[in-house]
Amino acid sequence: MAKKKKKAAIKKAAEEKSAKIRADFLTDRVVTEISDEARELFNQSRYGTQLDSGKIQLSLIEALYLMEKGKIEIYKTKNKQFKPEEFIKKAKKLEPNFWVRYCVFRDIRNRGYIIKTALKFGADFRVYDRGIKPGEDHARWIIYPVYEGSTLTWHEFAGKNRVAHSTRKRLLIGVVDDENDVSYWECRWIRP
Amino acid sequence: MAKKKKKAAIKKAAEEKSAKIRADFLTDRVVTEISDEARELFNQSRYGTQLDSGKIQLSLIEALYLMEKGKIEIYKTKNKQFKPEEFIKKAKKLEPNFWVRYCVFRDIRNRGYIIKTALKFGADFRVYDRGIKPGEDHARWIIYPVYEGSTLTWHEFAGKNRVAHSTRKRLLIGVVDDENDVSYWECRWIRP
Amino acid sequence: MAKKKKKAAIKKAAEEKSAKIRADFLTDRVVTEISDEARELFNQSRYGTQLDSGKIQLSLIEALYLMEKGKIEIYKTKNKQFKPEEFIKKAKKLEPNFWVRYCVFRDIRNRGYIIKTALKFGADFRVYDRGIKPGEDHARWIIYPVYEGSTLTWHEFAGKNRVAHSTRKRLLIGVVDDENDVSYWECRWIRP
Amino acid sequence: MAKKKKKAAIKKAAEEKSAKIRADFLTDRVVTEISDEARELFNQSRYGTQLDSGKIQLSLIEALYLMEKGKIEIYKTKNKQFKPEEFIKKAKKLEPNFWVRYCVFRDIRNRGYIIKTALKFGADFRVYDRGIKPGEDHARWIIYPVYEGSTLTWHEFAGKNRVAHSTRKRLLIGVVDDENDVSYWECRWIRP
Repeated sequence: MAKKKKKAAIKKAAEEKSAKIRADFLTDRVVTEISDEARELFNQSRYGTQLDSGKIQLSLIEALYLMEKGKIEIYKTKNKQFKPEEFIKKAKKLEPNFWVRYCVFRDIRNRGYIIKTALKFGADFRVYDRGIKPGEDHARWIIYPVYEGSTLTWHEFAGKNRVAHSTRKRLLIGVVDDENDVSYWECRWIRP
Repeated sequence: MAKKKKKAAIKKAAEEKSAKIRADFLTDRVVTEISDEARELFNQSRYGTQLDSGKIQLSLIEALYLMEKGKIEIYKTKNKQFKPEEFIKKAKKLEPNFWVRYCVFRDIRNRGYIIKTALKFGADFRVYDRGIKPGEDHARWIIYPVYEGSTLTWHEFAGKNRVAHSTRKRLLIGVVDDENDVSYWECRWIRP
Repeated sequence: MAKKKKKAAIKKAAEEKSAKIRADFLTDRVVTEISDEARELFNQSRYGTQLDSGKIQLSLIEALYLMEKGKIEIYKTKNKQFKPEEFIKKAKKLEPNFWVRYCVFRDIRNRGYIIKTALKFGADFRVYDRGIKPGEDHARWIIYPVYEGSTLTWHEFAGKNRVAHSTRKRLLIGVVDDENDVSYWECRWIRP
Repeated sequence: MAKKKKKAAIKKAAEEKSAKIRADFLTDRVVTEISDEARELFNQSRYGTQLDSGKIQLSLIEALYLMEKGKIEIYKTKNKQFKPEEFIKKAKKLEPNFWVRYCVFRDIRNRGYIIKTALKFGADFRVYDRGIKPGEDHARWIIYPVYEGSTLTWHEFAGKNRVAHSTRKRLLIGVVDDENDVSYWECRWIRP
């Protein structure tokens, strides 16, 4: 019995150790291994895109988020993992707006929303209502992440609102402050 | 009967004569004479503030609006009236944002709202719902009038919104374009 | 006869001298005197907006353009004119994007198009086809003026295109180089 | 009759067996065996380049596309095939922009266009109108594939357009988003 218990303990420890999904950094994205856990990332939580191979392709933003949550480990070579700081540095080089977009992505995800790219709509992100998954219903908001110190012209502001209006979504402006906190303003064009 | 007619004619002539309320320019505001018509400006349409003397004190913006509507005549000296252009020039010197603020005031008034200063709320104007007069209910919006060519940091944008939020009003941004037309965006702080 | 001729010559010289329309700088715009020449600016060439007084209100961009063309003189006080450099400095302070927008405005005007604000459409400018005046037909393009050294995110690019698409206008990007020359690219979203 | 049937059966089996063309990975490209099927890839569908030997040389992108379509098998050694994921990883190491370029190539091919490298034009790809093969007519577009998170200066944007203009082709910008979907914008330099 003691032996059996020990075996179970070893197995459990091994499972815990391997609880993190392996993912490989590939130039400008991150691709997971094929596993039930990886599939769950996509099926349950709607991270990334499922490739034909069954692997999940994550954006750099999604990858950092899952790394910080302890869900994945990102490998730069076969045996060498990225440290978070190192990964952020890499990502910032590849995507100049990485950090401001990441802050908003993280905050929205932490609040329980699914957030995906909105390039096709002419915006940064689209956000689904709580409990809604992409495909089940339309996104509720499009989000523009900005730094609080950056400048806004009224022409740009008008443009962002028009994009939201033309896609029948609400406009959410996510302003990231010096402490990486995000405040949100919902804006809409009205004729009083 | 003839007497009655005559009386009516006299009354009408008096009305016509007194159709324009006399108002005097006093350094940085405009004060009306004491008359029923002047009182009506305040009681009915909520222009200005009633002074203890019974005169109505108008802001420069209100005064220009009423002058352009043909309701008042503004005197710079005992016998000399301001021409509109002259008054605008004077007002612009006294208040650097006079024109952009006036464009928004005029547009909102023309749309049938009562609009008053919101200095004590830390904002430009407060606007009451159609049919609502100050005192009857809270203002619905505070308005921030800006010129399309000007810019803002998101930090400043957040500040304007905070003012609105703390006074439990909605923020309306009124952007005046080069053709003096005003476009409006309603913004509100949300915690998604 | 000689006397008559002399008189005529003096009159003509005076006319030429006064050929320039007087305009006053008022905080953030420029307003012309009332004259046939000023009215022509608006009626014929569609500069500015006509005020109720008959004066023409010009944007800072329009004012500089007309000053450089020798059509107007801009006064900062009753007797003191702006020098072009001085006016540009003032305008840049009031409108941080003044210069890049001015370069595009000037270039488009020089090419024979009428160009007006497009704030209502969510863009900087709208441009009418040659020979078309505002009101006669819809604008053909909306224009975004940018500096060649500034950076473009694809989300912003997608947004600008969507604004144009939703307003049924073509998108023209006007890129201003170090020598203030402007190059244009017409862009549209397609499904190949 | 039986003979005829048998012959047909043998032919069919042969076809099925040879359905997948063998191709070998050679440092940075892939070269097919000599076969009618391989030749068809080039003659009919215009994949790759025909070598003097009669073999077809494929780019890494073409090779992955044909592997995913089940047309070819890629061998890393005499007997060992690449798995798709393995091949992608290899290709990404060799070509940093492999994935974004592959996404655009695949999308354009799937839409029924022939797409070839445009290295000699100073661009990524050239694309022929539907039904047009290289040699029959000029390419219609050159395509610039980019990832949505990347940025560009307008100077670089102008450069891409100049390349297209100087080769008398239109520029198509293909922006790959986090879901591997591609959006297209057609741009052209104009002198308004």
